[in-house]
Amino acid sequence: MNPELVKGRPSTSGDGYPLNTTTLIRHAARTSPEQEIVFRTSDGRWDRYTYADAYSRIVRSANALRDLGIQPGDVVGVLDWNSRRHFELYWSIPGTAAAMLQMNLRLGEEDLGFVVRHSGTSWILVEETLLAVAEKIAPTVPDVRWVIMTDKPLEQVETSLPDPLHYEDLLAAASTEADWPMIDETSAYSACYTTGTTGRPKGVYYSHRCIYLHTMTMVAELGISAYDSVMLITPMFHANCWGLPQAAVQARAKVVLPGRYAAGELSPLVDAIIEETVTVANGAPAIFGPMLDYIKTLETKPDLSRARFLSGASEPPLSLMRGYAELTGADIIHAYGATETTPLVSVNRGIKPSLAQLPEEEKWDRKRSQGVMLTGVDFRLVDGEDRDVPFDGKAQGELLMRGPWITASYHDLNEPERFHEGYWRSGDVATIDTFGYLKIVDRIKDVIKSGGEWISSIDMENALTSHPLVREAAVIGVPHPKWQERPIAVVVTDGGVELPLSEIKDVLAPQFATWQMPDKVLFVDSLARTSVGKLDKKVMRESYKDVYAD
Amino acid sequence: MNPELVKGRPSTSGDGYPLNTTTLIRHAARTSPEQEIVFRTSDGRWDRYTYADAYSRIVRSANALRDLGIQPGDVVGVLDWNSRRHFELYWSIPGTAAAMLQMNLRLGEEDLGFVVRHSGTSWILVEETLLAVAEKIAPTVPDVRWVIMTDKPLEQVETSLPDPLHYEDLLAAASTEADWPMIDETSAYSACYTTGTTGRPKGVYYSHRCIYLHTMTMVAELGISAYDSVMLITPMFHANCWGLPQAAVQARAKVVLPGRYAAGELSPLVDAIIEETVTVANGAPAIFGPMLDYIKTLETKPDLSRARFLSGASEPPLSLMRGYAELTGADIIHAYGATETTPLVSVNRGIKPSLAQLPEEEKWDRKRSQGVMLTGVDFRLVDGEDRDVPFDGKAQGELLMRGPWITASYHDLNEPERFHEGYWRSGDVATIDTFGYLKIVDRIKDVIKSGGEWISSIDMENALTSHPLVREAAVIGVPHPKWQERPIAVVVTDGGVELPLSEIKDVLAPQFATWQMPDKVLFVDSLARTSVGKLDKKVMRESYKDVYAD
Repeated sequence: MNPELVKGRPSTSGDGYPLNTTTLIRHAARTSPEQEIVFRTSDGRWDRYTYADAYSRIVRSANALRDLGIQPGDVVGVLDWNSRRHFELYWSIPGTAAAMLQMNLRLGEEDLGFVVRHSGTSWILVEETLLAVAEKIAPTVPDVRWVIMTDKPLEQVETSLPDPLHYEDLLAAASTEADWPMIDETSAYSACYTTGTTGRPKGVYYSHRCIYLHTMTMVAELGISAYDSVMLITPMFHANCWGLPQAAVQARAKVVLPGRYAAGELSPLVDAIIEETVTVANGAPAIFGPMLDYIKTLETKPDLSRARFLSGASEPPLSLMRGYAELTGADIIHAYGATETTPLVSVNRGIKPSLAQLPEEEKWDRKRSQGVMLTGVDFRLVDGEDRDVPFDGKAQGELLMRGPWITASYHDLNEPERFHEGYWRSGDVATIDTFGYLKIVDRIKDVIKSGGEWISSIDMENALTSHPLVREAAVIGVPHPKWQERPIAVVVTDGGVELPLSEIKDVLAPQFATWQMPDKVLFVDSLARTSVGKLDKKVMRESYKDVYAD
Repeated sequence: MNPELVKGRPSTSGDGYPLNTTTLIRHAARTSPEQEIVFRTSDGRWDRYTYADAYSRIVRSANALRDLGIQPGDVVGVLDWNSRRHFELYWSIPGTAAAMLQMNLRLGEEDLGFVVRHSGTSWILVEETLLAVAEKIAPTVPDVRWVIMTDKPLEQVETSLPDPLHYEDLLAAASTEADWPMIDETSAYSACYTTGTTGRPKGVYYSHRCIYLHTMTMVAELGISAYDSVMLITPMFHANCWGLPQAAVQARAKVVLPGRYAAGELSPLVDAIIEETVTVANGAPAIFGPMLDYIKTLETKPDLSRARFLSGASEPPLSLMRGYAELTGADIIHAYGATETTPLVSVNRGIKPSLAQLPEEEKWDRKRSQGVMLTGVDFRLVDGEDRDVPFDGKAQGELLMRGPWITASYHDLNEPERFHEGYWRSGDVATIDTFGYLKIVDRIKDVIKSGGEWISSIDMENALTSHPLVREAAVIGVPHPKWQERPIAVVVTDGGVELPLSEIKDVLAPQFATWQMPDKVLFVDSLARTSVGKLDKKVMRESYKDVYAD
């Protein structure tokens, strides 16, 4: 135990009983054996089984892993879509006290190989349609053993993987007797690697305790229950699928697993949402947007008034939120977090009842924000000198967090600059208003530090693009001899027309004080972007670093 | 850490961050400072303040306790109704790492004095109208110091308590700076003493971890949220008020504190439920019954269709559940637990969606049961030889439980017969059906053990009283030379008429097998009862122990 903790009188409670994820699935199977799990198979058919069925396969899966010689503390990788086997492995791997490595199949092969080696992964289970990904990294991880997950017999699978085993054969041979160890709750349940723009992926290893508490909080704050039907749209290799698989099981909700789906063809998801009366789902605006477009084409609009769709990755556009609300009644819930935070730290469910008196536009303004911090996440906002700033809706500060599901370190990597007094530095600059609403205004590396004050680049970019001739804009801070940094705007206009600085300032005047205005506007043909299409402000800061030099 | 636990790979999560109840109230005050708390004062007025106001008094209360010299590990008693000061003390006492002794003001003075001495309580805070209770025990606990809670100045309070202090004066003098210690989560948050029919009260000391996990589970399983308004009707000195104060705060719900109310005059509670749109409350059928009677007299029946009323202590009658459902739409939720279980282990919220196809009567039959076990409580049913029996809705067994909020021992008392392989013996005999519904059928000491099988006394008593001439009935097991025990029925009839055994058996035939039937029926003028009016089967077993002797 942490020696800084104050000790009170001893309790008589069952404090030695550990928080294990096995508790969640075993309890659900015992108390709701009849509940359904709907899944799509590799060949695109929808099928279904029950919690009792799933649990009996999970028991055999755990026994099969042990039969392979997998031990507590080993790391087992998974390469799969949102399939029922992936769902089963979410429980069986950690249930043996091994850790499940969540393999992001969109990573480059060099990074993916690094992740496997860095984590010491000994076995990888790969879905048949992802063999190409596995085969690319296999030569770089010669000690890894492979298991193929498929509905076909092994002989019908063509692969260059060395001596692969067959998951269903292993299950068929395994014992049906449940034999779960009680696991020290600080043991790793799973591992995810963050993929920043610089450096190697960094390992975050989630404990059973972390996952258990994140799960309970999610169920509590989203009100998930046995009356819900939960569809997992976020890839299950992304940050624990945001904890939704575990939350659905704790709530004993119906689970809907869409398997592999294409971002260009989302109508099957919408059809399944209607068919299976889905009330909870998670995804990015890039998924919910096209789904809404499809809903618009439907003659009868579905009644999704019980639905709570968690939307993360980027701020959901107002048009998306209002579109769902008006056409279907669904609540698009802006959710915020990071790989380092398991991932949820705030959600924006509904609109607080205490805001009932506010004008409609102010409500929607709050609804766009990151919402209210989850109970259990302790947080601060600090300025450039790490002094706390107030929660008044105006003062900006970097958001620092700590708590049971906030990372306290990186695996096998010393990164002291990412922590401060036991808090993890989110790298996000935010305000928190008097109703508790968190609003992320910028990344700390992009915020402009001018004379000890901070200027949000994102707000200013949004304001600039409201000018009818401005097609896109970036605002960056560049070194200034007197003010440390000063903002410049880099702008692409229709037809390359150069607007006078005064006209630019007129556009900004309603939202920004004079001292916050950019002193220069540069008109360019295009903005520097990263390989994934994000503004590359690092490159821009380098290009324009001498603009204010005397 | 428990040495039997299997250790996996170390995590990078914030596992050292402890589960403290302070997290709940601080977080609520930070993220919902505007939320309301409605309370009734000692003189019967309704008043209200906000979470921010409450938190600032809680901070000062904790500082005042420290100013008195109260240290981590000390025990501080509270004698109060469901007042706002009691609510504040729920947070301030444990927040200093002291434990709050919940003093049951209905205990006899001898037992109450024992509890204070056994717990080593050093300070007691007493509400003005309860001074008589305090004054009775004061001479038997000479080392205890006293603080009086009142709206009056101290000079106007008449009391024989030695050198009492004044709570509001202490608060006024205390610092307003929050200075919460991080508390080892296994430290005691509060203590309750069980009051069995035999022996001295037994101490159950709840850890911060226990309360925190119980709270989260309650919020999750009852779906409590900021949209709810929560009234605490169960006395706050009873088993943590069933955890509802903590659950309301985690959910950032409105809290309604009815102060002191009389069981004979419950209309003010109903009026407040309507006025404050209460959606969650807790109480016994003895409270909810008269409340329903009052609702029947109202010209306009209130719409309570969002309401979930937790009803515990005894099985709510079907007429009560259906009455609320039909007149108001409220869901009466049968809740089950004990002092040793913090207390909730199962709730019967709504009716499982998967039971939609069942006939109405079968649904209500399940609705009367104890409901579904809460996630986090591990449980077994065992027969007389402690062998597990199946969850098939038929096999009866004693319910054993373990988990973070199930007691693992009693304070300063060795009771090995109350535990088995790390599970706490509930003393309740139950069945669990294939939909996960728990049904308590008897107390283990009252169940009749006949030839290795168990016969439920309660079921048979209910069947007997369905005979039009049977006024009351008790079924007990008495020693039998061949079968270990055999049932006899002890019956009070209208006019003392003696019914033939065959007629008694006819009444039982639809529900009971021949071997389960009582071999003798005794007709008596009245049944032995305890001082609180319960059937005294111990006395009856003694009186009739020779009935089957040869």
